[in-house]
Amino acid sequence: MSDDEGQISLQELQLAARNHGMPLEVLRHPITPVGLHYLLIHYDIPNVDPAEWRLHIGGKVSTPLQLSLDELRRRPQRSETVTMECAGNGRVLMHPRPQSQPWLHEAVGTATWTGTALAPLLDETGITDDAVEVVFTGLDRGIDGGEDQFYERSLTLEEARRLEIVLAYEMNGSPLLPQHGAPLRLVVPGWYGMTNVKWLSHITVVDQPFEGYQQQHSYRFRTTPDDVGTPMSRILPRALMAPPGIPDFYTRQRFVAAGACRLEGRAWSGWAAIAGVQVSVDGGSTWSEADIGPGELGRWAWQSWSYDWNPTEPGEYVVCCRARDSAGNDQANFPPWNVGGYANPAPHRLHVTVRDDLPEPKRG
Amino acid sequence: MSDDEGQISLQELQLAARNHGMPLEVLRHPITPVGLHYLLIHYDIPNVDPAEWRLHIGGKVSTPLQLSLDELRRRPQRSETVTMECAGNGRVLMHPRPQSQPWLHEAVGTATWTGTALAPLLDETGITDDAVEVVFTGLDRGIDGGEDQFYERSLTLEEARRLEIVLAYEMNGSPLLPQHGAPLRLVVPGWYGMTNVKWLSHITVVDQPFEGYQQQHSYRFRTTPDDVGTPMSRILPRALMAPPGIPDFYTRQRFVAAGACRLEGRAWSGWAAIAGVQVSVDGGSTWSEADIGPGELGRWAWQSWSYDWNPTEPGEYVVCCRARDSAGNDQANFPPWNVGGYANPAPHRLHVTVRDDLPEPKRG
Repeated sequence: MSDDEGQISLQELQLAARNHGMPLEVLRHPITPVGLHYLLIHYDIPNVDPAEWRLHIGGKVSTPLQLSLDELRRRPQRSETVTMECAGNGRVLMHPRPQSQPWLHEAVGTATWTGTALAPLLDETGITDDAVEVVFTGLDRGIDGGEDQFYERSLTLEEARRLEIVLAYEMNGSPLLPQHGAPLRLVVPGWYGMTNVKWLSHITVVDQPFEGYQQQHSYRFRTTPDDVGTPMSRILPRALMAPPGIPDFYTRQRFVAAGACRLEGRAWSGWAAIAGVQVSVDGGSTWSEADIGPGELGRWAWQSWSYDWNPTEPGEYVVCCRARDSAGNDQANFPPWNVGGYANPAPHRLHVTVRDDLPEPKRG
Repeated sequence: MSDDEGQISLQELQLAARNHGMPLEVLRHPITPVGLHYLLIHYDIPNVDPAEWRLHIGGKVSTPLQLSLDELRRRPQRSETVTMECAGNGRVLMHPRPQSQPWLHEAVGTATWTGTALAPLLDETGITDDAVEVVFTGLDRGIDGGEDQFYERSLTLEEARRLEIVLAYEMNGSPLLPQHGAPLRLVVPGWYGMTNVKWLSHITVVDQPFEGYQQQHSYRFRTTPDDVGTPMSRILPRALMAPPGIPDFYTRQRFVAAGACRLEGRAWSGWAAIAGVQVSVDGGSTWSEADIGPGELGRWAWQSWSYDWNPTEPGEYVVCCRARDSAGNDQANFPPWNVGGYANPAPHRLHVTVRDDLPEPKRG
């Protein structure tokens, strides 16, 4: 952890340079365009030959399976439109700052994932009665916490049997890209990004809770370093806004002409539908309810929201937004800090300068 | 500028979170996969309706033109495979550090750009005898150096008439993506990225050298802040390597098993073909020549290189590479610093730990 607020190390920058955020103006798109969905790649993007690749399903099953990509493609197809967010989104704005991938706000994206459902495949293997969890292993290998490992995460058997879990080989109607886990990725709607194992190669049914590093050490909500903590699972509510007006290149300060200015954005929760979004145009002193869109992308994707702002006075404003869901989770009420830097609930804040007008600059 | 070496500001991080680098393991691909090519977006990605969009060609011409995307698509097609690099690549490793987009090494990518050639279009407009330059204006607008502007850059008339300059509407055989300049982008093979104006809307022929901010203030090689400097133009030679072995998640330190280890990478120059790549496995004390690939991607794209390393002794190594071209430009001989932080010639350096062996970790 670091107390150097606002001073990022070169090691953190190395991660920011590799792991793509979604530029926030892209919130205007219901489905995030190819190449703009966030990426968190723990180790390297592995070099996978899809012709040689197999999915191995084994462990506590009566019929282990090995499946090629063609065999998976011949199975019944299922698509889910899912908003995915990194559990560490907002980490760099925590004080003191947990040191890992230094996300500001942009570790999010929405895609339609197409593949085949996991649950029927598990059924076909004949899971034995002593099974308790399912471990998903990727082909990406590296060292984390001093331990050489393939990236892997588990789900309880009950969670793994949810009908909407997809083994995805397509994203937005095109073959999965290398950086998103080609040839196959686990997609668990509603859960933080770390659950959605990329470059999936092995599914192992086990009779003990999985003790792997990414399950027992990383991705836990801990209030002190000695706290065992609770595992991160579903995505807590968050709202983000598309920055209004035009930016300054370096500071990203926004400039808006006085008068009507519609603020727009998206909000999501992995626990339940979005129940409301609040907007503040005075830095969080007072809040107003935004209008919520129709949720046309379905249960697992973000909802649009809008708020008609009308700043008639030129000057400096701080515009904020925050969300709550219908299960009672409210971004306004979460603990503000944890050891791993997960799920920072701080509202999205933008500094906006309102000017009398913003005449179009000349060209040529 | 900052003397806080290794401590990056939140403003710099904001830019790193928006502007995507290419993870260096992606150097294994001759053509950079969709979504992994570097991106430097000065302002916001503009929201362009391709049906409404027009390319306006005017200024010192006898026949101004307005062209729709369909009209451009009906013209003769031209494709160029081009390695594009940001002029600021390597900036964050300069001392003291110029403050702008904080690139480490990863601001590069190679794509096949398809569209129609610029030169015949310019000819059809009937450029007048007093014309000296051509200004290219994008739809992206913002404030830089205190000045509200559309992003724009110029070329001399002679340079603009080069036959290989493409007005591109496709990238790697697919329609141009929003973040790469859809619906139309200028592609000038061999020049640094700032030349390749995205979201191109206006081409203006002018009779005076263009004085716009991105031409006269930004993107100049200046040794002191008062220096008028010289404009950045073509890409100087650089070599990068795909990191060998496996990484540590946080430090990106590399781990390799003792024994044969082929180092591979790519090298490029906008001035001439690559004449050689040198590799050092002792932190730059001694250098050896790498093997250069056949250059199968053509004149404007990077060349592959390889070097057979055989570290038999476990321990710590610093592996480096650097390139030179057939026009006499050598990465080993460039000035190491300039005000804007452009074209940092420092060799690519990687810290590698060689271990006796690296047995595959268990799964599940």
